[in-house]
Amino acid sequence: MFVAMNRFEVAPGKSEDFERIWSERESHLDQVPGFLRFALLRGETEGEYISHSTWEDRDAFLAWMESDSFRKGHAGPSLMGILQGPPKVSLYEAAVTQEAGGPSRTE
Amino acid sequence: MFVAMNRFEVAPGKSEDFERIWSERESHLDQVPGFLRFALLRGETEGEYISHSTWEDRDAFLAWMESDSFRKGHAGPSLMGILQGPPKVSLYEAAVTQEAGGPSRTE
Repeated sequence: MFVAMNRFEVAPGKSEDFERIWSERESHLDQVPGFLRFALLRGETEGEYISHSTWEDRDAFLAWMESDSFRKGHAGPSLMGILQGPPKVSLYEAAVTQEAGGPSRTE
Repeated sequence: MFVAMNRFEVAPGKSEDFERIWSERESHLDQVPGFLRFALLRGETEGEYISHSTWEDRDAFLAWMESDSFRKGHAGPSLMGILQGPPKVSLYEAAVTQEAGGPSRTE
């Protein structure tokens, strides 16, 4: 399992606009091979957000980055004036996973 | 949906030990009400890890923190000498979520 996180620092007073853009976007993710799930996470500090996507493996994520679906998904409204700075991407491989009702599993 | 992340900075050469402790732990999470899933994520920088748990809501997470199950799950081998510093907890509420094959959803 592979996780990509993108950390955003939203300008003061712009959090509602930021969330609305995400909820109204056409993500095109749901049909992408290897995509498992997405969440936009709101932190406890004003303006702190993470876009969080989970994939079967790194290759599925990399293939999506090269795809038309990625290009279309990033053609929406600009975040200019809404962010305080550039988003910061971090990538992770799962070392251990566990689901509700299931045993712990080493990947 | 609610996400708790705990960021760890593992000492040089200790990553294997750290992962083994996590994979061998008795987590007691699988039967906790409101628990959805867990992953130990390995970052791209040597020694960078996140323990990542997802819950139905903040109350489920807080109830687990107060429970016997939490106490038992943290009674395992010490991470003394394995970490470079104290772990950093961050808590998040989901603002938008999406699963494979499903539409985007505002929470």
